[in-house]
Amino acid sequence: MTEQRTVDVVVIGAGISGLTAARRLTQAGRSVAVIEAGDRVGGRTMNLHVTDGVITEGGGQWVGPGQDRVLALIEELGLTTFKTYLNGKSIYHRRGRSKRYDGTIPPMSPLAIADFAQLQLRLERMAKSVPLEAPWTARNAQEWDATTFGRWLDAHSFTAEAREMFTMAFTVTNAEDLHSTSLLVQLARIKGGGGIDHAVNITDGAQESRVVGGTAAIADRMAAELGPAVVLDSPASDVHQDADGVLVRSARLDVRADRVIVAMSPADATRIRFTPDLPTRRSMLQRRWSTGSENKLFAVYDRPFWREQGLNGQAVTDLPVANYVVDNSPPDADVGILLTFHGTAGAGWGQHWSDAILDDPAERRDTFLADLTTLFGPEAADPVAYLEKDWTHEQWISGCVGSRAPGSLTQYTDADRRPIGRIHWAGTETAILNQGYIDGAVSAAERAASEVLTATGARVGGSALS
Amino acid sequence: MTEQRTVDVVVIGAGISGLTAARRLTQAGRSVAVIEAGDRVGGRTMNLHVTDGVITEGGGQWVGPGQDRVLALIEELGLTTFKTYLNGKSIYHRRGRSKRYDGTIPPMSPLAIADFAQLQLRLERMAKSVPLEAPWTARNAQEWDATTFGRWLDAHSFTAEAREMFTMAFTVTNAEDLHSTSLLVQLARIKGGGGIDHAVNITDGAQESRVVGGTAAIADRMAAELGPAVVLDSPASDVHQDADGVLVRSARLDVRADRVIVAMSPADATRIRFTPDLPTRRSMLQRRWSTGSENKLFAVYDRPFWREQGLNGQAVTDLPVANYVVDNSPPDADVGILLTFHGTAGAGWGQHWSDAILDDPAERRDTFLADLTTLFGPEAADPVAYLEKDWTHEQWISGCVGSRAPGSLTQYTDADRRPIGRIHWAGTETAILNQGYIDGAVSAAERAASEVLTATGARVGGSALS
Repeated sequence: MTEQRTVDVVVIGAGISGLTAARRLTQAGRSVAVIEAGDRVGGRTMNLHVTDGVITEGGGQWVGPGQDRVLALIEELGLTTFKTYLNGKSIYHRRGRSKRYDGTIPPMSPLAIADFAQLQLRLERMAKSVPLEAPWTARNAQEWDATTFGRWLDAHSFTAEAREMFTMAFTVTNAEDLHSTSLLVQLARIKGGGGIDHAVNITDGAQESRVVGGTAAIADRMAAELGPAVVLDSPASDVHQDADGVLVRSARLDVRADRVIVAMSPADATRIRFTPDLPTRRSMLQRRWSTGSENKLFAVYDRPFWREQGLNGQAVTDLPVANYVVDNSPPDADVGILLTFHGTAGAGWGQHWSDAILDDPAERRDTFLADLTTLFGPEAADPVAYLEKDWTHEQWISGCVGSRAPGSLTQYTDADRRPIGRIHWAGTETAILNQGYIDGAVSAAERAASEVLTATGARVGGSALS
Repeated sequence: MTEQRTVDVVVIGAGISGLTAARRLTQAGRSVAVIEAGDRVGGRTMNLHVTDGVITEGGGQWVGPGQDRVLALIEELGLTTFKTYLNGKSIYHRRGRSKRYDGTIPPMSPLAIADFAQLQLRLERMAKSVPLEAPWTARNAQEWDATTFGRWLDAHSFTAEAREMFTMAFTVTNAEDLHSTSLLVQLARIKGGGGIDHAVNITDGAQESRVVGGTAAIADRMAAELGPAVVLDSPASDVHQDADGVLVRSARLDVRADRVIVAMSPADATRIRFTPDLPTRRSMLQRRWSTGSENKLFAVYDRPFWREQGLNGQAVTDLPVANYVVDNSPPDADVGILLTFHGTAGAGWGQHWSDAILDDPAERRDTFLADLTTLFGPEAADPVAYLEKDWTHEQWISGCVGSRAPGSLTQYTDADRRPIGRIHWAGTETAILNQGYIDGAVSAAERAASEVLTATGARVGGSALS
């Protein structure tokens, strides 16, 4: 029989956002239940087992300066971070030639560097005019939301090299083809993420640090403290609200509460039946969410041999699969790991993947290893292990990040986070700063928890229903 | 206990496409089962009860010349059609002024008429270069697929009046904001639907005729003939295929078959778990499908009083709700019905609806009736009945038509209809001609049935599994 509980607040989704919301509410004296469809916590963060005692991150993995909310949470949980490995030279590989370089700017041609700079300047100037809390009110909102970022780049770049570099960087961070994403969404993300340099850089950027034990530890620790409040393997099917409260039905647990926080991607929220019906804008936003998707490919070696060659493992390339490579070895370098991001969006360089690369794991692996051999020499051909984490085939997660399709911001405005009666929305997709990052998941959760506390303020310390 | 059946071909979805596929297979001597999630057949066609013996069409309702497959099916089923009422003058209402006109071209300003003509000429010239079977191979495919139709119209129109007329017409036929839809998709639809005049016109166009008894009769007659092969209230949850056949699990029925035809919108197919996993392109196409949505509003009067004023009931307006009005009375004019299409996409004239219009039925009704009163006089204020059919809140149907989001055609190419082993795809979304129309549902079904017959040709007359 389905278990019954009554709590102050029920949270749907035990990713970092759902768990953070539950944690903040618990800290404020509220009773909570967290319902998770899958068999683990962490959502789009998870550890992959590499070898005995060694893990790597299958999902979101980086934190950096300016991501204050996740950094505070990491500290609060007693976790520590370490710097992404970056000693030595990076590789820039294009049209069959490899160049080594220091610092953050790949040795593009002087013209491409100038072109990259003008694109960056224009985008950041446009981004400045976008009000973060309401991008749809920007003076050019309608035009920019009806323009794809890819089309804008194609039309405003003068060199293929700069265009391809931009495309690669943003395809990796967005996990979708830039010809599918709204320019307005991207401008808001550029502004909300601290600028283009911050988005693409390791040092002083969004890829600066990793968490010892993996980012999965963030969710694991929160879940451990929440204990039996977290219920796994229990997909939520119904959210019913009325004047008295909410009733959330899930496979293993029915919960009555005063409020509900839905901490899922808007795309995943379509699986829940809401009564009364959601407002049309919210319903359409969910149905038309463009989920992104990414596959992380890891080649594991007995040691990070590239470091011995003075290389830091980072590479920016136009090779078939390994478009952006980074050293993802554990902090003690017990093994060496090279990681690339394989978006289904197609190669960062404007090509679309072949079906073989997309759907034949052996072909993908072989091509990836051939790319790494081109970059790092014959030792790269022979990893001791090879891992993938493909986010396109998850049962309960429709993909990573993604974004609002063109026209969605101006049409559905704040439907991503506007509370609907007793329903509040968390998840990184609803964040104003660092949307799509772990930091966004944390800040969105704290915003949603704060909404709930404000709405139920008169009842601090007691259950609304008990 | 779940019933078990073994047939040659199992069809998922009892809309017109699924039923047509089952019919054609049955006619070819194959045994079939049709599994439907909802409690009725017809999918996005259905009848609404108006008064005793009078119905109106809640979903797709028109057929016209060039829609050969549905016209043939209608005849085959012994159904008849009647012409959409068009005797008398139409109304063009803009900026507070109403003008009456004959024929198909609203009395826009001469400049707007010229502008409309140049837009139409450009679009049809571009459409000509799009290969219907493979729009992604058009020379400008990448650029057009990365451009929204709305943005293209905004950039290439010289007059607000022509732009607004185009926007209105295409918003109604697409059921989505044109700033969300790919120009390449629209060009393919313009070509595949017989041109712009054909798409927007009643006479000689896609809105020329209606079916006596409503379009729902098409599905009803097919279902009646298929008898117990059609199983309602049985959402499909799993499609498993291997070398021996397919197994489709649904709430009330598990079916083993040689092949399966999925006759659902790609968006709805996300609810089914496929093993082995779908190829990435298909999976992403489904996840990123942009469902459209429309609400049909009907004001019912004791008689079509506007006809007495020499009006045909058709109006093209910039009023708040009634942007495109048409006489939808039954063939014998027992009652008079005025119909408008209320897309959630926002008014055809580039405005977005207020939340009140979207979510408050009383506000929507009152505004609609006020609009009708402006157009047709005080008698319009007092209907004997008022009906709506809102497609945004269906449990098993994610909305009407919709389209592939920008970037999708070039990225996922023929993933909408490419068979995957024993899985074949029907539904109007997979049609090459008249995509989004009932005719497309029929032709897609016949194409899928023909694929199955070709693939299993050696076994004509016998079950593959018996």
